[in-house]
Amino acid sequence: MRVLGIDCGTERTGWGVIESDGRRHAVLAHGVISLSPRDPLCDRLAAVGAALRLLLAQHSPEAAAVEEVFYSQNVKTALKLAHVRGVVLAAIAEAGVTLGEYSALSVKSSVVGYGRAEKSQVQLMVRTLTGQTIESEDAADAVAVAICHVTRSSVVVAPLKVVTR
Amino acid sequence: MRVLGIDCGTERTGWGVIESDGRRHAVLAHGVISLSPRDPLCDRLAAVGAALRLLLAQHSPEAAAVEEVFYSQNVKTALKLAHVRGVVLAAIAEAGVTLGEYSALSVKSSVVGYGRAEKSQVQLMVRTLTGQTIESEDAADAVAVAICHVTRSSVVVAPLKVVTR
Repeated sequence: MRVLGIDCGTERTGWGVIESDGRRHAVLAHGVISLSPRDPLCDRLAAVGAALRLLLAQHSPEAAAVEEVFYSQNVKTALKLAHVRGVVLAAIAEAGVTLGEYSALSVKSSVVGYGRAEKSQVQLMVRTLTGQTIESEDAADAVAVAICHVTRSSVVVAPLKVVTR
Repeated sequence: MRVLGIDCGTERTGWGVIESDGRRHAVLAHGVISLSPRDPLCDRLAAVGAALRLLLAQHSPEAAAVEEVFYSQNVKTALKLAHVRGVVLAAIAEAGVTLGEYSALSVKSSVVGYGRAEKSQVQLMVRTLTGQTIESEDAADAVAVAICHVTRSSVVVAPLKVVTR
């Protein structure tokens, strides 16, 4: 199963594409959509939309996974993030790709086994689980969301490799 | 000056296109993008994006005006609304159309002269100012945002009609 994970941000939106059989996860591609805080929000939103449409077309994922908005600390920041998330969800729906939404707690629990894990711990566990080092914490977070989707998804996934004798 | 006003909503997004010389305002078209609350949010967002792109292409406005998000009462509702608003702002930026953002207070003050006016009062003043009755309160609100943009905009606008002798 191929999954695109996205870690939305108003300045940096991490993304990662994994191929997984539910146990083994291979990172096919990852990156960060960087946006200048000096640009108006509407231009940043248009840029995220364009980048997402390109990623969905390039990697043809079967599913996309996105974190829910977390707003316990700063409502203004959460509202800006929700604008970005809106554009991301619209692009996913437009592409006809299945969407999975997970709380930050679920993602960290799935990957690290502890819901309050730090970003650096998530990055470390992503390396352990995929065998690949992802330098950007935002991209590692995106891969973690994709892994969370695969492990939490009730969908029966096809094996990563079929061994024939 | 042709302005597209938009009143974002998670179920009903009102819109109105006006042509104005800064004093006289003519409503060229108006309507409501209705979305079923039963549909997943991502599908509703995709539908809003598609409708907005169509409206921008059909009416070629010089500017678009949108209300800011109001979140004093319910953060969850405001966050959902911010998703819709994100898609709307992205479509406006993609079309290269100038964006004006106004608080609900500014819009009501501009149109009714009182920042805490009811929706019905806004609808009534839109009728007085444009000479047109707009039955949907959401579409009337959208026209009000467009009128607010024209009256608050520092842009020198061309006259609505040039009378030649």
